[in-house]
Amino acid sequence: MTTPRPSLEQKAALTSGRDTWHSESLDDIPVMMMTDGPHGLRQQLQDGGDALGIGNSVPATCFPPAAGLASSWNTGLVERVGVALGTEARATEIRILLGPGLNIKRSPLGGRNFEYFSEDPRVSGELAAAMVTGIQSMGVAATPKHFAVNNQETDRLRVSAEVDERALREIYLSAFERVVTVASPWAFMSSYNRINGVYASENHWLLTELLREEWGFDGLVMSDWGAVNDRVAALAAGLELEMPPTGTDQLIVDAVRTGELDEAVLDRAVDRLRLLAERTERPPLTGYDADAHDDLARSAAQESIVLLKNADVLPLDAAATPRIAVVGEFARTPRYQGGGSSRVVPTRMHSALDALTDALGLGADGLSFSPGFALDGDTPAGAADEAVAAVEAADVAVLFLGLPDGTESEGFDRTTIALPAEQLHLLERAAATTTPVVVVLSNGAVVDVASWEHHADAILEAWLLGQAGGLAIADVLLGTVSPSGKLAETIPLDLADTPSHLSFPGRDGVVVYGESVYVGYRHYDTRRLPVAYPFGFGLSYTRFEYSELEVTATGRNSWTVAATVTNVGERRGAETVQLYIGVEQDRPDRPVHELRGFAKVDLEPGESARVELPVTERDLSHWSVRDGAWRVEKGRYTVELAAHSRDVRLATTITSEGDGVVTRLNGMSTVGEWLDHPYGREQIQWFIDGVDTRFGATAPEMIVMLKQLPIAKLTTFGIGLDSARIERMCAEAAADGERHGEQP
Amino acid sequence: MTTPRPSLEQKAALTSGRDTWHSESLDDIPVMMMTDGPHGLRQQLQDGGDALGIGNSVPATCFPPAAGLASSWNTGLVERVGVALGTEARATEIRILLGPGLNIKRSPLGGRNFEYFSEDPRVSGELAAAMVTGIQSMGVAATPKHFAVNNQETDRLRVSAEVDERALREIYLSAFERVVTVASPWAFMSSYNRINGVYASENHWLLTELLREEWGFDGLVMSDWGAVNDRVAALAAGLELEMPPTGTDQLIVDAVRTGELDEAVLDRAVDRLRLLAERTERPPLTGYDADAHDDLARSAAQESIVLLKNADVLPLDAAATPRIAVVGEFARTPRYQGGGSSRVVPTRMHSALDALTDALGLGADGLSFSPGFALDGDTPAGAADEAVAAVEAADVAVLFLGLPDGTESEGFDRTTIALPAEQLHLLERAAATTTPVVVVLSNGAVVDVASWEHHADAILEAWLLGQAGGLAIADVLLGTVSPSGKLAETIPLDLADTPSHLSFPGRDGVVVYGESVYVGYRHYDTRRLPVAYPFGFGLSYTRFEYSELEVTATGRNSWTVAATVTNVGERRGAETVQLYIGVEQDRPDRPVHELRGFAKVDLEPGESARVELPVTERDLSHWSVRDGAWRVEKGRYTVELAAHSRDVRLATTITSEGDGVVTRLNGMSTVGEWLDHPYGREQIQWFIDGVDTRFGATAPEMIVMLKQLPIAKLTTFGIGLDSARIERMCAEAAADGERHGEQP
Repeated sequence: MTTPRPSLEQKAALTSGRDTWHSESLDDIPVMMMTDGPHGLRQQLQDGGDALGIGNSVPATCFPPAAGLASSWNTGLVERVGVALGTEARATEIRILLGPGLNIKRSPLGGRNFEYFSEDPRVSGELAAAMVTGIQSMGVAATPKHFAVNNQETDRLRVSAEVDERALREIYLSAFERVVTVASPWAFMSSYNRINGVYASENHWLLTELLREEWGFDGLVMSDWGAVNDRVAALAAGLELEMPPTGTDQLIVDAVRTGELDEAVLDRAVDRLRLLAERTERPPLTGYDADAHDDLARSAAQESIVLLKNADVLPLDAAATPRIAVVGEFARTPRYQGGGSSRVVPTRMHSALDALTDALGLGADGLSFSPGFALDGDTPAGAADEAVAAVEAADVAVLFLGLPDGTESEGFDRTTIALPAEQLHLLERAAATTTPVVVVLSNGAVVDVASWEHHADAILEAWLLGQAGGLAIADVLLGTVSPSGKLAETIPLDLADTPSHLSFPGRDGVVVYGESVYVGYRHYDTRRLPVAYPFGFGLSYTRFEYSELEVTATGRNSWTVAATVTNVGERRGAETVQLYIGVEQDRPDRPVHELRGFAKVDLEPGESARVELPVTERDLSHWSVRDGAWRVEKGRYTVELAAHSRDVRLATTITSEGDGVVTRLNGMSTVGEWLDHPYGREQIQWFIDGVDTRFGATAPEMIVMLKQLPIAKLTTFGIGLDSARIERMCAEAAADGERHGEQP
Repeated sequence: MTTPRPSLEQKAALTSGRDTWHSESLDDIPVMMMTDGPHGLRQQLQDGGDALGIGNSVPATCFPPAAGLASSWNTGLVERVGVALGTEARATEIRILLGPGLNIKRSPLGGRNFEYFSEDPRVSGELAAAMVTGIQSMGVAATPKHFAVNNQETDRLRVSAEVDERALREIYLSAFERVVTVASPWAFMSSYNRINGVYASENHWLLTELLREEWGFDGLVMSDWGAVNDRVAALAAGLELEMPPTGTDQLIVDAVRTGELDEAVLDRAVDRLRLLAERTERPPLTGYDADAHDDLARSAAQESIVLLKNADVLPLDAAATPRIAVVGEFARTPRYQGGGSSRVVPTRMHSALDALTDALGLGADGLSFSPGFALDGDTPAGAADEAVAAVEAADVAVLFLGLPDGTESEGFDRTTIALPAEQLHLLERAAATTTPVVVVLSNGAVVDVASWEHHADAILEAWLLGQAGGLAIADVLLGTVSPSGKLAETIPLDLADTPSHLSFPGRDGVVVYGESVYVGYRHYDTRRLPVAYPFGFGLSYTRFEYSELEVTATGRNSWTVAATVTNVGERRGAETVQLYIGVEQDRPDRPVHELRGFAKVDLEPGESARVELPVTERDLSHWSVRDGAWRVEKGRYTVELAAHSRDVRLATTITSEGDGVVTRLNGMSTVGEWLDHPYGREQIQWFIDGVDTRFGATAPEMIVMLKQLPIAKLTTFGIGLDSARIERMCAEAAADGERHGEQP
């Protein structure tokens, strides 16, 4: 039996959604439901009405948003969260999850930073890949987003991100490349913005040449919601599905009819939608274990917490310091996620106050609670006084500070990294008492710590932790678990120190990425700037020693780096070992070092583990704009195993002979390049020797200038090489290069 | 009588030189001789042989190279130097002088910085314009160079300077624009490098659309020596004269014959060569007054010296401190210019040692001289000991330190700003004696001062000062004149603080200008970084007070800023008053302030002068990438009169209503832009009011997001505005905008 050949109109209809959350159907291609979901499902209620993502949705487990999860540096954990997300999707007949979000945190001000992993593409890429693997293991498509260079909310529907090619490749595209090549996502979401002038949604180079032809992506590309400006250009560029629909399918039909658009492009889009349907064709699940997922959310939250400072006050010892003053509205009213399309209605909600109360009991001699301030800024008179009195009366105070809901959301960027003045004033008053003060921070993106950290005896950076964050905070405060999170983004001393400070978020429709590849620690470490807390930083209740570094060559440009990590403290804990590689060079035209791998090990006191991390040719390389390729330079490279980017525990060097690619000489190759080339040197050495003889005292200057001169230019200057001779030399060099397989 | 119509071949022959230093002739167009000449003529001897500019040349007055001259901040002086250069050219039948060089000093490492004026385009542009005016007043064509964005020597024949449009317009093109619009040069020289991928010599936008059509240049464009890669493309782009010739005129002929090149383009090139010949057609001078020019060189050198530090040791008092130890080979063997094509054979040569000896007499109780070190690094044993002994025996020591010849030249960039270690060691030993130490620096580009300035009681930054530099140094040391130079470039604390540090000079054929408009003090002042000596800094032997600031509006966006400067010290001296303007803004997307004018006044003790500086609309503006135009934003602007960029003496604010340009609304205008627009607000206010009602608690977030949304996108989200209504609103807004003359 054959089905009738679909009409042009039917095929065109498939390239936009049926409605805001469903794709269109045709014959064997079913309607597919999709939903926001980077850290939990936001399946909008039928009567939700609006499409912007602020309305109500079906309850789902709210896991920690990416900013928290990234601090776990635990790919296994993130994969399990992905499995849970996939499970909940299957249970509600959702085939496509819109996530994870893996844009680079270019500035701490980025409004959507809480939804993204890191300032580093390796961390972003590995964690996103783990999440995709988890989600898709349940037969649900993951949709990595927002592709690409969508690193701000300001003017996001129009702004052109002006990024040089090296920064694009090494920083902004690299995590997406990893997620494609490692985890093979079935869908991808293009971003709103323009990249060097061209809308991502209409960018053929981005969506077809790079994503599919170079990286091998074989899934479906959909638009961010409302990102398509030109239906035909978008489809031709490789964007198969416009979401939500705009009722403009006829434009596709017309374009095919006029010959502007090849019908084969449309057919391929239909094929890709069909493939996505096939891949996500699974029997629905009847439900999922919400309690188990809540437990997973708790584990994830535990690992997301970063202990920044601890002057012997944590973990709390309820026996020794029974009177604990819990201060701050966030303890009672958790800030557990950010605003916008990722907002989840959770299945459970655990506040830190409830969790501490459950653990310790509430009473005159035990736990006290004072809100201290109101989240809406309308703090009642006496609230701060009451809180300070409670601190004074306690053995230890735990202040829950952070950014109120509504200060961080999709749709706008922040303009400051400061905590609200009211909270800082409360902290100052608490610090003026004799009671030790622990600060627990709730914030989706980096907040200033440097200006007030001297007021705190301990600081927990608890990010936004999802629905079980309160339990996790109590677990860490009380020492049920040792904190093991590490910063996936640098906390600067000052906003003015941030690399994008002078250009974020741009103006007049353009944002210039002037810092190029020097994003995050690549900037701070290369410029040797002091920071509040470096990338990769995080304390534990136990201590780890690194030993027995061993680097073994496994191929021409590949090695294994191994070391032993030992828990030399008194408690169980987990450590993330970070591998950084740098190239030894005269000029700072590459970052001083870059993260090239990491591994987390969970160790009992006294226990050791051997960590092995591979180093690949790519890990040594930089993107050569001239060659349009990843290139490895001959030379020495530093290999560092570190507890954070400024705490290198073990280091050595490796030597690479380079990638063996020799560029063929031509007339625009400089005299210096001829001299550096095995064949070229034979041809030209006599000439340089002649300069030495001829120019006497000024010869050294002359030779330096000559080395920079393309050899074809020598004819211009009439200094001993005529054009016939140069042409012959070039022809011979080209022939020699061809014989030796050199790169043209 | 009519001359026969020239053949295609004859016309093509005119578009390249006859030889290295002459243009070709035809009929009424004579051969024209040209020569290097930014700070003195380098008319190569006939037997010089090479074309790279290292050979011998006819003696000519060697004025201070631009790095020195710029420190004078004296446009009148620079114009007089220009007149002298023009006079010497006329006296040797030279019609075209290849200069001034006015590229921006992007990095202190730039190999040719000594030939350029400043890190600031206003200083560069005003001084270059003065020099052009002076040269051309003698009927000799000036040739501003190297157009454009040629800010490094490394790979200069191939490298692509990747610069964003704002930095191009506001920094790298701005000085060239000024020189064209103020001084109407008759020739222009295109640079070697590429700009955003396109060779300057083949860049139609640069050489035709911008230079001629926008700025009104009506002269001839020639190539830098050997900069043409594609004859036909260059001619088509607007480059009329290839220098030196490459014997490829036939390519032009062929291109016209095949129709690739319009013959009208060739005819226009011929016309421009003819116009240049007409403009430079003057009777030759029989000679010039070399002594008078030497005197002018001395005045120029005096004003070029910057007194950086003076702990009451200068001027030297030969009566009180008769025993003066002059130390350092530079005192005897002046370093007075840099290497490369600008190297002049001077008519006279005055060393500082000779000048001091003439002034003071040399004897046991007077002046002593010890070389201390050799300039070639091969210092004989005991030289340093002998110098230190001389310092010990003296009442005051003057150490002449600097960069040896050969460390600064066209053709290569530096890799360090440090002085040679040997010299620093000698300084350290001198400082360890009880004798006060004066340091006189000879260097073409910035050297580190911060690491050793505590060893010096006084520091003169004497740059490279041309042939009369020795006299000028003695004049300043002895107080014959008060120093009046001010820094035209910042001296940083550390090379790593420089804005281009991480990207200079690039790699793989590309250099990314990531710092964008934040070059020099625009970087240091906006980021509030400490520096060794700020832009505009320079001490005097007298003191100046600023008073009676008055700002008078002279038009819608123009003002006059006036103030009184009084010499309140004991000596005659000159002060450069600097006008900086900044825009008051929330976000640092413009430099905190920018130089918008300056004036130098020479005052006797007790004397006052009224300084008046105009502020134009352009002085308030920034380059809008969206509009492709200079735009003035409504708001408050700071107006500062300053002694240097960090020493504001008088300040006030002015308010601008903006430039009155209203951008017409369309579908891609955001809801926020509609609300900000007089007509748009009427149309859309009801909708925003409705959001407030409809979304309750989440309305504020919703409204923030909506304001960023292009209005056409509202249809996508189905929130109350259908597409018909939006289309009608856009049509009405467009009609209204047209009625009001809004910018589309």
